Amino acid sequence: MEKAKKIREGDVRTASRLIRNIEDNIPEARSTIKDLFHDTGKAHVVGITGSPGAGKSTLVDGIIDWCRRKGKTVGVLAVDPTSPFSGGAILGDRIRMQRHADDPGVFVRSLATRGFLGGLSKAVGDAIHILDAMGKEVILVETVGAGQQEVEIINHAHTVVVVLVPGMGDEIQVIKAGIMEIADIFVINKSDREGTRKLQREILSMLEMSPSSAGGWKPSILTVGNAFDRAVFEAGIEVLSTKIEAHYQHLVCNDRMEDRIRRKAMHELSEALRACILEPILNGLVTAGDLNWMIGKVIRKEADPYTLAEEVAGRCLQKGAALK
Amino acid sequence: MEKAKKIREGDVRTASRLIRNIEDNIPEARSTIKDLFHDTGKAHVVGITGSPGAGKSTLVDGIIDWCRRKGKTVGVLAVDPTSPFSGGAILGDRIRMQRHADDPGVFVRSLATRGFLGGLSKAVGDAIHILDAMGKEVILVETVGAGQQEVEIINHAHTVVVVLVPGMGDEIQVIKAGIMEIADIFVINKSDREGTRKLQREILSMLEMSPSSAGGWKPSILTVGNAFDRAVFEAGIEVLSTKIEAHYQHLVCNDRMEDRIRRKAMHELSEALRACILEPILNGLVTAGDLNWMIGKVIRKEADPYTLAEEVAGRCLQKGAALK
Repeated sequence: MEKAKKIREGDVRTASRLIRNIEDNIPEARSTIKDLFHDTGKAHVVGITGSPGAGKSTLVDGIIDWCRRKGKTVGVLAVDPTSPFSGGAILGDRIRMQRHADDPGVFVRSLATRGFLGGLSKAVGDAIHILDAMGKEVILVETVGAGQQEVEIINHAHTVVVVLVPGMGDEIQVIKAGIMEIADIFVINKSDREGTRKLQREILSMLEMSPSSAGGWKPSILTVGNAFDRAVFEAGIEVLSTKIEAHYQHLVCNDRMEDRIRRKAMHELSEALRACILEPILNGLVTAGDLNWMIGKVIRKEADPYTLAEEVAGRCLQKGAALK
Repeated sequence: MEKAKKIREGDVRTASRLIRNIEDNIPEARSTIKDLFHDTGKAHVVGITGSPGAGKSTLVDGIIDWCRRKGKTVGVLAVDPTSPFSGGAILGDRIRMQRHADDPGVFVRSLATRGFLGGLSKAVGDAIHILDAMGKEVILVETVGAGQQEVEIINHAHTVVVVLVPGMGDEIQVIKAGIMEIADIFVINKSDREGTRKLQREILSMLEMSPSSAGGWKPSILTVGNAFDRAVFEAGIEVLSTKIEAHYQHLVCNDRMEDRIRRKAMHELSEALRACILEPILNGLVTAGDLNWMIGKVIRKEADPYTLAEEVAGRCLQKGAALK
């Protein structure tokens, strides 16, 4: 309770330590998240996603400035790709923090997880709750990557911004499968480059092909110029930030918020079930030496993984109708 | 058993149908995978990964040709980014298959999954088993994406090829965290472009900074020219394919294969545990209407997801030492 109280009061150290504990999957972290849960759900969570090199961080920086000028507090979560071995984010908090280090209205953290069972998505959800409970009004979640991981942001964010850059060739063709349906706003970044018009046309024609969203929001396609040309860049950020705000208003005014909140709740529940059911079983198998024994069986082709897992399920699960 | 027999005999229809069933998470598929398990583990599994637009498919195509000239049979699994809503891969099998449609020594399938609980990695593992049991000697697994998903390939492949293209700016900076440690071979594709030298230097200097692998394999950095210049491209493919083969020999001759097989077994077990324990519990909650009730509680902030999940765990799990 003490920790939760400190976080509600905006204590940066307590929040940072809790985020680290969540990254490291330390069990004690969970009780603080439980304590905080009631104080969450107030922030506007914005996902900023796109390919590596698309310039997401520069945009995030611009949006932070804009929010601060409007008097809004901002939390930023930079979800970094992770090494399964050494762990940790190369682009550390230090670099990102510098510019806003003296501003108590801005809290920036990077997030990375390693681990046998994944769990990045759970960590992202928990970290958002922390920034939310701290009272940050806008939470920007920057994720790198295409495919599954990128699409995952829909489980956490109210508004999804997809960042693209011109001249990446067949990229669109490759990423469109998942991304077209989750984007609320498209940003063509570094729009001084050749190929901006072409990219605009491509996105437009793909939007026309895809079934129109039931919510009545038409995804916008915005351009933001190169950050070296400060005036053009800031004009782009102004349009983008205003559009992000407009999307939030749209959700609220058209009763669309419930959908996003429901999806988030469903996702968090499934992640929590994994953490509370699968992880203790796995830890038990490791402690008892059973996991090693099972791995040996699989390696020697004496048993297949499914048969072994079914045996564990038979031992661990209560018999009951709800478990069929 | 009948289906397993047909797949061992190389029956394309049975194999294709089984892969579709795995994608759709149809329970019956599991028993065939069990029947096949003993016949797996013979193929050389090669992961080809990299950013969207890096030209992975063109390289895969070149490697297929090379393998066929050497008389090797090839299986290809194209893991496509997936939409959580409409599902399905945009770049379908049809396009990929055409060139090799008449060659019974080549089997190409794309793979996509949707679903509440993820499960793409389990599907990839199962599909590799199918191609393996069919007798494909080399299995190429093409994955799109950066971050977690890209790094995941290490759980399935003996040899990991990371494909990069020059001129993508700060890409390396962003992706290196996870990718540097899993790459056995780097390919700079479309190396006629400006920036190839710079990219080579960057990879080299990062390799020098990272701790040298215990296995004694020094990751190679190769270049492959633009596919439009056929002679240059094919020379590049020749070098790449030979290097892929050399890496396999290195694993075998230096007792490094055991590590990779162990990692794969461990990963498959954890995926199987999820499928056999978490999925039935979740299905039970859905059927009983409990999941909806729980989601409602979370939405109304009456309970946090962890407390609810702990209650489910208390109901579903047997008390026992192995379970903590």
